Parts: sequence; structure tokens; C-alpha cells
Amino acid sequence: VGSPRRRRRSDCPTAYALDVFGDRWSLLVIRDMLFGGKRRYGDFLDSEEGIATNILANRLARLEACGIVAVSRDASDLRRKLYRLTQKGLELAPLMVEMILWSAKHDPRTAAPKSFVRRARTDREGLLSEIAADNKAADRSGGA
Amino acid sequence: VGSPRRRRRSDCPTAYALDVFGDRWSLLVIRDMLFGGKRRYGDFLDSEEGIATNILANRLARLEACGIVAVSRDASDLRRKLYRLTQKGLELAPLMVEMILWSAKHDPRTAAPKSFVRRARTDREGLLSEIAADNKAADRSGGA
Repeated sequence: VGSPRRRRRSDCPTAYALDVFGDRWSLLVIRDMLFGGKRRYGDFLDSEEGIATNILANRLARLEACGIVAVSRDASDLRRKLYRLTQKGLELAPLMVEMILWSAKHDPRTAAPKSFVRRARTDREGLLSEIAADNKAADRSGGA
Repeated sequence: VGSPRRRRRSDCPTAYALDVFGDRWSLLVIRDMLFGGKRRYGDFLDSEEGIATNILANRLARLEACGIVAVSRDASDLRRKLYRLTQKGLELAPLMVEMILWSAKHDPRTAAPKSFVRRARTDREGLLSEIAADNKAADRSGGA
């Protein structure tokens, strides 16, 4: 946890992006929020990759420190936290879409939904607008 | 080194992309090849982030095993290896461009060249074509 600034090695934009979200678990949490509408701690734990609870807590705190995730209380249960993407986090969507297209093309076992891939290729802007709208809806409802 | 298949946790396209190139050093080596025209071991070592030689050797071998990097002998010095991006590796360019745009927007200290950012926003396809052509030229010349 903490600012990536402290261990910064260069001002290269690739290095910056990697400092902020470039570890496996961080990006999978962002995926769950961005495409899965997940907003609750337990929902992230349930993902099929099997993230450990200490790693999840660490990555959520780190993403919050980096301004990618914001935390609030669940209005329907004040003991529970809700995690949502900030605007900065939402703006990772184009990068995530490119990642999915690349994997869908090169991974013979890909689970990328064909309809998503087709839409990303033919109507990228429309898809990105829909992802943003779905995320706002998940913020309001407290998650999928 | 070795196939990412063995420790695969899901068929999710985000997870696949992370298995293949998702560690800091791998992506910085890809950056050096894609945007810097670097093709030689010593040129990767010289990058400002200061990669250690054992890590560099490991990541190049891993990228080769994943089909992102191909290795050949330098025609002008047969003891020397040349590392180039395969088509699969070149096709990471759109993802890298999105990463640069995101960092350029959110990192106040970004070193992303303004001209690159402007071009990526206004003429994305032209920029991608130029990156591909520059890489073919670097392959022919043996690197920057």
C-alpha cells in the first residue's frame, strides 16, 4: 500500500501504468468491478481465480491509494463497505477492452464472449459508453 | 520460463493477458522493442528502469516461450542474438497505446511525448501502422 511515487523508477507512461495497476490481482479486481459490476468484498473473493483475502485487502487499499477505487458504506448495511471505480479507474476500460481483444485472438481456450469481441471490433465507442453506464448503475444498486 | 498454461487459473481473457505479459519487466521489454526499436540484449539492459541481467534473461526466455518474441542471430556478428516481436507481440501495440494515453492523462509527471499522445487521439490507425512499419525496419537493421 502507498503511493507508487516513492519507488518510481522513471516517468515513462508504461512504467506509471504498471506501478498503478500492473499486478495480476489488481487488474483482476478492476475487471470484476468494470465488467462484472462487483462492488462488495465477498464478491471479489468469489471470483474463479481464487484471490486470498489478505491479497484482496492489500490490493483494494492500494487501488484506493492510487485513486482508482473509492470506498463508501453500503446504505442498506452500514457495516459493509462498497468499492467503486473512480473516473480514473473507469478510464482503464479502453485498455481492458484491448487486452480482451488480444487474448480472444491469441488464446485458443479463451472465455471471452464472442458477442463482446464482435461488439468491441464493430462498435467500440458504443461498447465503452455501455460499460460506463453499467458501472454507474452498479454504483447506485450496490453491485451485481 | 515455460508455458503460462500450466498455472492457468481461468480462461478469462484478462487473466490470459496477465499470464503472458503481465509483469512489470516483461512489459517494459516489450515497450523497448515496440517503441524504442531495441533488438539487442545490451540495449534492453541500458533502459532507465535498470533491469537486472538475470531478470532480463528470464523475461526474454518467457516472452519467447509465449510466442511474443522471436530470436535470431545478428548477421553482422553471429555470436550476438537479436530479439524481435512476433506478429502476436506486435499486436500488443493497441493495448500499449491505450496504456500510454491513460498514464499521460493521469500522471502529472508523465514523460509521454505530447506529439505521440496527440497522434494517438487524432490518428490512432495511422499511428499503429507507423509503429508496425518502424518495427519491420528495426528487424531489418538489427535495432536502434
